Amino acid sequence: MTIAQPGDRRGPVQIRDVGDGDWAQVWPFLRDIVAAGETYCWPRDTTEAAARTWWLGKPGGRVLVAVDEGRVVGTAELHPNQPAAGRHVANAGFLVAPSAAGRGVGRALAVRTLEVAREAGYRAMQFNAVVETNIAAVALWVSLGFTVLATVPAAFDHPRHGLVGLHVMHRPLTEPAAG
Amino acid sequence: MTIAQPGDRRGPVQIRDVGDGDWAQVWPFLRDIVAAGETYCWPRDTTEAAARTWWLGKPGGRVLVAVDEGRVVGTAELHPNQPAAGRHVANAGFLVAPSAAGRGVGRALAVRTLEVAREAGYRAMQFNAVVETNIAAVALWVSLGFTVLATVPAAFDHPRHGLVGLHVMHRPLTEPAAG
Repeated sequence: MTIAQPGDRRGPVQIRDVGDGDWAQVWPFLRDIVAAGETYCWPRDTTEAAARTWWLGKPGGRVLVAVDEGRVVGTAELHPNQPAAGRHVANAGFLVAPSAAGRGVGRALAVRTLEVAREAGYRAMQFNAVVETNIAAVALWVSLGFTVLATVPAAFDHPRHGLVGLHVMHRPLTEPAAG
Repeated sequence: MTIAQPGDRRGPVQIRDVGDGDWAQVWPFLRDIVAAGETYCWPRDTTEAAARTWWLGKPGGRVLVAVDEGRVVGTAELHPNQPAAGRHVANAGFLVAPSAAGRGVGRALAVRTLEVAREAGYRAMQFNAVVETNIAAVALWVSLGFTVLATVPAAFDHPRHGLVGLHVMHRPLTEPAAG
């Protein structure tokens, strides 16, 4: 994914908290991404009700949307990766409408989500299951300071590639200790 | 944990599926283990209702108990680590009553759970959050063929040790391909 270029005739995407009317615009591209089955461990025929609970209903969660000229073209959800003794590490999910690919929407969502996580007091962000064939996502996270802690072998049944690995990725959100 | 020695006057622990009346014996030691806060990312004041849903209610889950002379002294729960495209990898949780420590209950539960997972068609077992200071558990898993794929740094707030790592551990359940 690339940041929108200076010559792009559209302005930068706006990132804000999800509002009451946004779900109707999120659902169509969430449905399409889940139905493709290439990036999320979710039933490809997930119902709208289940998807809404999944995306909007996580305990301690916060949801952002990316808005491009009034249209919701992406979303991120941030929540504790574990409860209680593990709640200081965040997990997050990201979705960008395929029709908006290549305009930096994912990067803008990612940068803002990292800021929000830091402001909320999380000390790190962890992803448990980044599909290793999702090259654009992996490259984005690496460019934003994440490392691949491990790749769980053959953990994801990809509809085209068969069994592929799932990356566990991690990024501290704390400043380095003063030297 | 060690296997019961030949001189032990008691017989080996029996492992079977959980029955209707078992929860009442599971809850007291589950409560104590969770309240100690040293091995699970669960609220230390978890209610009985929440604990029961957590342990017995996972989608696609199966629960075993370890029985020693008619008394439930341990339990294991097995479930898919991820849904859909990730459902062929199992996750599991284990609890042994502190009063039964050192008699091989954890090992007996672990061995049987691995068998059950293999019989159910899982291709691997993964743990997402083994507290690195839980030396007995880590040693048990390594002795049963698990490897530490990664240690997520400072991911667990231990009541005595402060921030410690969480191991991601993994073991294939498939036979090696014929040479």
